[in-house]
Amino acid sequence: TELMEDSDSSRERYLRNILREMITYIAFLVTICILTYGMVSANMYYYTKVMSQLFLDTPLSPGDPATFRSLATMEEFWKFTEGPFLNGMYWEVWYNNKSLPENQSLIYYENLLLGVPRLRQVKVRNESCSIHQDLKGEVLECYNLYTPSNEDTASFGPKNGTAWVYASETEVNGSSYWGQVSKYGGGGYYQDLSRTKEESMTKLQLLREHLWLDRGTRAVFLDFSVYNGNINLFCIVRLLVEFPATGGVLTSWQFQTVRLIRYMSSWDYFVGLCEVAFSLFILYYIVEEVLEIRIHRLHYFRSLWNCLDVLIIVLSVIAIIMNITRTAMVGKLLKGLLENHTAHPSFGSLAHLQVQFNNVAAIIVFFSWVKLFKFINLNKTMSQLTTTMSRCAKDLVGFAIMFFIIFLAYAQLAYLVFGTQVDDFSTFQASIFTQFRIILGDFEFSEIEEANPVLGPIYFTTFVFFIFFILMNMFLAIINDTYSEVKADMSQQRSEMEMTDFIKKGCNK
Amino acid sequence: TELMEDSDSSRERYLRNILREMITYIAFLVTICILTYGMVSANMYYYTKVMSQLFLDTPLSPGDPATFRSLATMEEFWKFTEGPFLNGMYWEVWYNNKSLPENQSLIYYENLLLGVPRLRQVKVRNESCSIHQDLKGEVLECYNLYTPSNEDTASFGPKNGTAWVYASETEVNGSSYWGQVSKYGGGGYYQDLSRTKEESMTKLQLLREHLWLDRGTRAVFLDFSVYNGNINLFCIVRLLVEFPATGGVLTSWQFQTVRLIRYMSSWDYFVGLCEVAFSLFILYYIVEEVLEIRIHRLHYFRSLWNCLDVLIIVLSVIAIIMNITRTAMVGKLLKGLLENHTAHPSFGSLAHLQVQFNNVAAIIVFFSWVKLFKFINLNKTMSQLTTTMSRCAKDLVGFAIMFFIIFLAYAQLAYLVFGTQVDDFSTFQASIFTQFRIILGDFEFSEIEEANPVLGPIYFTTFVFFIFFILMNMFLAIINDTYSEVKADMSQQRSEMEMTDFIKKGCNK
Amino acid sequence: TELMEDSDSSRERYLRNILREMITYIAFLVTICILTYGMVSANMYYYTKVMSQLFLDTPLSPGDPATFRSLATMEEFWKFTEGPFLNGMYWEVWYNNKSLPENQSLIYYENLLLGVPRLRQVKVRNESCSIHQDLKGEVLECYNLYTPSNEDTASFGPKNGTAWVYASETEVNGSSYWGQVSKYGGGGYYQDLSRTKEESMTKLQLLREHLWLDRGTRAVFLDFSVYNGNINLFCIVRLLVEFPATGGVLTSWQFQTVRLIRYMSSWDYFVGLCEVAFSLFILYYIVEEVLEIRIHRLHYFRSLWNCLDVLIIVLSVIAIIMNITRTAMVGKLLKGLLENHTAHPSFGSLAHLQVQFNNVAAIIVFFSWVKLFKFINLNKTMSQLTTTMSRCAKDLVGFAIMFFIIFLAYAQLAYLVFGTQVDDFSTFQASIFTQFRIILGDFEFSEIEEANPVLGPIYFTTFVFFIFFILMNMFLAIINDTYSEVKADMSQQRSEMEMTDFIKKGCNK
Amino acid sequence: TELMEDSDSSRERYLRNILREMITYIAFLVTICILTYGMVSANMYYYTKVMSQLFLDTPLSPGDPATFRSLATMEEFWKFTEGPFLNGMYWEVWYNNKSLPENQSLIYYENLLLGVPRLRQVKVRNESCSIHQDLKGEVLECYNLYTPSNEDTASFGPKNGTAWVYASETEVNGSSYWGQVSKYGGGGYYQDLSRTKEESMTKLQLLREHLWLDRGTRAVFLDFSVYNGNINLFCIVRLLVEFPATGGVLTSWQFQTVRLIRYMSSWDYFVGLCEVAFSLFILYYIVEEVLEIRIHRLHYFRSLWNCLDVLIIVLSVIAIIMNITRTAMVGKLLKGLLENHTAHPSFGSLAHLQVQFNNVAAIIVFFSWVKLFKFINLNKTMSQLTTTMSRCAKDLVGFAIMFFIIFLAYAQLAYLVFGTQVDDFSTFQASIFTQFRIILGDFEFSEIEEANPVLGPIYFTTFVFFIFFILMNMFLAIINDTYSEVKADMSQQRSEMEMTDFIKKGCNK
Ligand SMILES: [Ca+2]
Repeated sequence: TELMEDSDSSRERYLRNILREMITYIAFLVTICILTYGMVSANMYYYTKVMSQLFLDTPLSPGDPATFRSLATMEEFWKFTEGPFLNGMYWEVWYNNKSLPENQSLIYYENLLLGVPRLRQVKVRNESCSIHQDLKGEVLECYNLYTPSNEDTASFGPKNGTAWVYASETEVNGSSYWGQVSKYGGGGYYQDLSRTKEESMTKLQLLREHLWLDRGTRAVFLDFSVYNGNINLFCIVRLLVEFPATGGVLTSWQFQTVRLIRYMSSWDYFVGLCEVAFSLFILYYIVEEVLEIRIHRLHYFRSLWNCLDVLIIVLSVIAIIMNITRTAMVGKLLKGLLENHTAHPSFGSLAHLQVQFNNVAAIIVFFSWVKLFKFINLNKTMSQLTTTMSRCAKDLVGFAIMFFIIFLAYAQLAYLVFGTQVDDFSTFQASIFTQFRIILGDFEFSEIEEANPVLGPIYFTTFVFFIFFILMNMFLAIINDTYSEVKADMSQQRSEMEMTDFIKKGCNK
Repeated sequence: TELMEDSDSSRERYLRNILREMITYIAFLVTICILTYGMVSANMYYYTKVMSQLFLDTPLSPGDPATFRSLATMEEFWKFTEGPFLNGMYWEVWYNNKSLPENQSLIYYENLLLGVPRLRQVKVRNESCSIHQDLKGEVLECYNLYTPSNEDTASFGPKNGTAWVYASETEVNGSSYWGQVSKYGGGGYYQDLSRTKEESMTKLQLLREHLWLDRGTRAVFLDFSVYNGNINLFCIVRLLVEFPATGGVLTSWQFQTVRLIRYMSSWDYFVGLCEVAFSLFILYYIVEEVLEIRIHRLHYFRSLWNCLDVLIIVLSVIAIIMNITRTAMVGKLLKGLLENHTAHPSFGSLAHLQVQFNNVAAIIVFFSWVKLFKFINLNKTMSQLTTTMSRCAKDLVGFAIMFFIIFLAYAQLAYLVFGTQVDDFSTFQASIFTQFRIILGDFEFSEIEEANPVLGPIYFTTFVFFIFFILMNMFLAIINDTYSEVKADMSQQRSEMEMTDFIKKGCNK
Repeated sequence: TELMEDSDSSRERYLRNILREMITYIAFLVTICILTYGMVSANMYYYTKVMSQLFLDTPLSPGDPATFRSLATMEEFWKFTEGPFLNGMYWEVWYNNKSLPENQSLIYYENLLLGVPRLRQVKVRNESCSIHQDLKGEVLECYNLYTPSNEDTASFGPKNGTAWVYASETEVNGSSYWGQVSKYGGGGYYQDLSRTKEESMTKLQLLREHLWLDRGTRAVFLDFSVYNGNINLFCIVRLLVEFPATGGVLTSWQFQTVRLIRYMSSWDYFVGLCEVAFSLFILYYIVEEVLEIRIHRLHYFRSLWNCLDVLIIVLSVIAIIMNITRTAMVGKLLKGLLENHTAHPSFGSLAHLQVQFNNVAAIIVFFSWVKLFKFINLNKTMSQLTTTMSRCAKDLVGFAIMFFIIFLAYAQLAYLVFGTQVDDFSTFQASIFTQFRIILGDFEFSEIEEANPVLGPIYFTTFVFFIFFILMNMFLAIINDTYSEVKADMSQQRSEMEMTDFIKKGCNK
Repeated sequence: TELMEDSDSSRERYLRNILREMITYIAFLVTICILTYGMVSANMYYYTKVMSQLFLDTPLSPGDPATFRSLATMEEFWKFTEGPFLNGMYWEVWYNNKSLPENQSLIYYENLLLGVPRLRQVKVRNESCSIHQDLKGEVLECYNLYTPSNEDTASFGPKNGTAWVYASETEVNGSSYWGQVSKYGGGGYYQDLSRTKEESMTKLQLLREHLWLDRGTRAVFLDFSVYNGNINLFCIVRLLVEFPATGGVLTSWQFQTVRLIRYMSSWDYFVGLCEVAFSLFILYYIVEEVLEIRIHRLHYFRSLWNCLDVLIIVLSVIAIIMNITRTAMVGKLLKGLLENHTAHPSFGSLAHLQVQFNNVAAIIVFFSWVKLFKFINLNKTMSQLTTTMSRCAKDLVGFAIMFFIIFLAYAQLAYLVFGTQVDDFSTFQASIFTQFRIILGDFEFSEIEEANPVLGPIYFTTFVFFIFFILMNMFLAIINDTYSEVKADMSQQRSEMEMTDFIKKGCNK
């Protein structure tokens, strides 16, 4: 019995340590949740929504169903810029046709346009591709896909002004950007518009008249930023119109709603306090983990929990650095903007940083919640379930490999057969996601059938049969079998003192 | 064998008691079903549908696809009120252009407009928010989100008439209301329209001309009530146009179709009788449960069945009180309405009460059905299944906690990453529901991918894999294992006299 | 060993009998499949499609998005009849504006309009409902829901001609019909149009001018029939415009594409032959089953297979009778039509009969396939599976009852809470189907949430959790457990001679 | 122990062989993946998309929602050809209204129209069907469904020119083609357009004026090909307008985007090298399998792996032959095209060949991935899973047969009941696919209910209950039970040397 007691008291000590660790951890988790709480709000979504509605859903001309989303030709591009784009940007009168006070342009009467909008295009050189011998008589010009090496940097048209003379990435203070078709460089031919609608219109008509867009044009960027003082949010907008080498138009857009100016309200100051607390927590964990690594060395990394700790710490450090950088950048940028109203302010990279910061924070929160499982394991029912999970992990991984070989074989088949016809299969990755969606029941059978009336239905039927009816059930079989085993094992084990018992005991004292 | 007989006869006595209880209960259930039977009918849905069609789906102007649902600017708001709103409200001619008999305005020639419609707006004060030092030169005015403390109560514009002078909640006999963005107070600036189209139009044009809506406006309520004599139904309509601090417009609506006047037809009188019966049943159950509580004291609440009984009784008492209140209120209101035709009648709170009553009734019926399981347990096959359920409940709850930690971690991740871009993730709750919908297969992958082309697909793929492929199967494994156990146990038990045997025996006598 | 041999030879005899029965049955199944093969063809769908496209999808006026599907007011009803309805009915010129040869009206240049179209309305009497004391001053007229007892049979308007004088069901040769709101009688006020567009237009304008539709109108039927000689198909069209007591308009339609004239081509004659064969088969089975019933008496009905046999026979006899009736009716009707071109032919009841015949045939085929399982059982692997099914049937039924109590409790809750707002829950039956659809993943969460922002999400979340996560898994647990049992049992049984062995043996001889 | 060692070394020899085979196979797999890598690209999808957008989504006239997709009458066909078709084909001016340089017509300013477009129609003879005695007075003309024997080959209209005189399949160098309704022959009446818009318009108006389309017309093909020099792709377009015997119009289309000219860039040359390597691999495998067949004879085909090998080899040989044929054909065709600009080039069969080649390649890749399982089996965890699969295969097949009997019985029921009304059930095959889609949750319940308000919901509810709730769970039960068995068996087996051990041993040496 002495041994028993001894084991009991050692167990008790162990539990006391764990409990301490757990309470610390929960304090950490609460801090994180407070930090991320105000990061996103429904207002930010509404802001994104109303701004995108204004520019994406306004018809090109009254009664016409075409909008920015459905642009199809260069002519429609000009209709858009001279119509919904300018009208959306410059609000000069109230709804009763009286002009706005102070002659200001406030989008939706609320949002300040920062500086002026900018149009920028990137082009490719003629004869950037090789043509078959037989067709050289027919195909006189040839403009390849956009790549940095194919980019056209020669002046064209009137050859004066920024619109007709190439400016490099550093000159325009831009950065490269992934469109739907290619990754475009940050340089190009750009035209800043004006603070009033009439002047901007004149500039646009000049561009149109002199064929600013020609066969070499591969993409046009429409950039501008607005600030809403009511809710202290910036919206950095980029409308991208791509002219792929196939002809036609592809449009995409980015409305980044971010809170760049901080520490304004009392809640902001409280969050600031939490940020300090968070940094201290991270410091504490860094020290702890470093100590542990010194003790266990490489064995340390054998435990997944430890890897998770390291991951959280590394991401947190990155987030802290990003936050500091951001705050520094904003100040500089705002000053520049205030000094020159008629310049185009480059909020792009700042917004990008802020979005990345949000993403990192989101991932930190996610893994912080996952780490909670470390403590949940102490409860017997719970540990039974996590034991099942970990015991069948090897089999599950083994089967997942087999499953994904078949899954990817199907994806490649679908990509090769339907890729040229169906959007959902137009890239290999899209094929993979589409197959997940088929499993969940969100797909367009009619498109598959139309693309290939023979292989389409065969693909669909066999996919559903093998993957949905047969293979997915294997996952279940593995889990089911392991759970039975674990439960049988558990019922034979001696029951140890549990956390709940320990807490009860503590309370009773 | 004596013991055996004894046990048998005690069993018999037990079964006789249960049978009596069961028959009483079924009588109670039938009464409830009759009560709720006529509460909702397809006609009520059609009424809601045709009214909402008239105001929500009529284009702002012929050939224009924009409707109330898609209002985007203040200008369109005026187009709506002066167009579809007035046209829908005042029907003064037949389809062959002859004016309606008696110069009455009947919506769809069938529905009487009660009193007059009312427009009411709530505003916020200028300088209700703080602006960053650097931007004060640019951002001269600042109107915060609506909160009671930010509300503007100063007169504006012409400063005469209810439209321009603030009226408090009690003055307008209103109540606060949850819009999409905020909860708005019941006070504000209101304008009652007239009984004819021309007068109403004049009033609206006056409002428009003097800029009734300005940057401070946060919401406009359009309220009116109609009565259909054919089917004795009221439809209380509220169209809400919110002008969030972001600019733009958000519209929502409420069409509450309720039967306020009762006891008209013979069926109504029969239902009235049932209501009396229901009250007696409740009285009977109250007495019974009070007695039981006096016997068992706190042990009483250990049984879930008892808790369910208490819940049903409490809800029923609430419902009875609501019903009485409602009947009292209707009479008063109708009298007021008949005395003054040109006033705006406040059916809002009454409709709200009726809807809440319906909801409470719905919940009572639901739990009454659930209570049926108490009696179903007496059948052997059935008890085998309910035993499985109750025996695996602990494990299921344990696993559900684990499941929802992961589930909520995913929801928070999605909220932070996609919240500013995708409607389905724009609040934390919405994220949770959206994840349920992903599991069922109702979602928009393209929006997720567009919002974040990197994290979007990773989120989706891992979510489907871990939640749909792995974790959901654990629920099954738990149930499966427990069922096997229960079935094995059951097959070894001595079979007791069952309800069916008892009834057979009774019949044979 | 003698016993053994004996048993073997008795088994052999048994198998020989079964084999004979099986071959007979397969011949029967083939006959049925041939009979139903030509009953439906893609052409019939195309016919339905092009006809419905013409009348349902043509805009009321060019550039207007409203069509018959979206009719909302009485005015739009007249727009429809004078616009798309007349234009679709009378095709008098070719696309190069030359008139059609022979001055015939061929819909789509291919389909002969049989006789003339008919408009028929049903009305209800004024003061068919009781109004509350307080409101009698306001609500002067009151037209209840349509019921036969409320129907108005008085003449109105000019009081001359069939359009203004009531005609009973027998006079118009009509029959009652289920609309969306009510079941309407076959009588009413009707107006037959003419063979030319101009005359028809005049008649319609007369109706409109004299207010043919008034507050009492509850439904208008637009009936006509067309015949396509190319593919020998009739299309009997009924467009129903309901004017519910709530005001507004509900439209529905019926395009019954049927082959009424038969025995034209050689394939038809072959089918005729099969029909004879089918009748003989049925005769044979009747005799057989009668004999069996005489032997086994009521025990006969204990076997589900026997019940299935009886069901198939009864349905077959019904189908044969329907077929004979149909053929007789067609001849009579065609003759009447040819004698009087300007009358409205009543193909309605004939089309109804043909559709019912098709449905009965479909059900016969379905059960005939199911009966095949009787023979499949003879194979060992197969019998293992069917044994599992039949052995767990009792548990499954028991659980299904529990499942559906919860399921229906949810359905009733949803009906009471969302019924007045959401189409998918507007009747109790619709609620049930919608819940099945939620399980499969086809639903509109946004509508549920909008209808009740509090109870909506709670309903949805708990429904998915309890029904989809927990209860549905019980079905699986039951099947899974039983299968394990059956498989264990089977592996211990002595293997009998199987059908495959018997056939092999037969072949070897 | 000697035996043990011996067995060990024989095992080692076996593993060495397998390893060699595996490495060869992986080299083969890599080669294939490289070959198919460039075959499909996102550019090809964009090309298909922009071309189909131009011809399918452009409205027939501005402000009209009708497009090619929704053509409904012959008149709209002419509107399409004279509107969007001609405008899309001939781009003669820039967006600033200056004419294009060199008077060339470049679709989207990028895509060269090859030769001229062609319109071709097929007709059927009058009196190609029999009419019922009674109706002969009414139905004077009768044009049956299209079949080769019904085809009209007589001259009509002005009876001069290719448009009015029949040309056989060989004369027009066409081939038969499956439309939605029928398979159409390659001959007919055709009209080649011109290189300019004005001339083409004149030709079209002539056709329209003389009623080129009449009641006998069953289909019109619009064929043309474009070449994009930028990305070296052809797009062969066929727009098919069918005029079924029911009247009305059905449209379908084919945009085949193919790379016909090869070996232009350095990547192309690398792929060419891989093609040679691939051919060598195939040669090697042919030799190997032939040797094996000579040894094992018919036993060879008992192994599924061997059948798979043969399948891959046969498909590969077919693919190689197709590739060679294609290359030969392109050269010839291009030469012909360059010699005569105003002729219509027949790229149809070439594009067809290329698409078939892609499909064959896709299937080869798919099966090559599947073959990988042969090697995966060597790992113990993996083999446990594949053993499960193969052991339950017999039961699964047995159950699948039962499952599909019920499934097909439901499909036939649905086809007969809903076939004439609902697109998703309009053919038997479509019914089958629709039922798979119901299982996954992608369906339209409202259409089913509308088609038959009684049988529709019964069909749906029972289908979901029996198939989704009950039968699909049997698959799981079978797999689950087998997995438990296999796992129990495996844990008792002596562990053999595994591939991983062998590789480790090899590394250590
Ligand atoms: Ca689904």
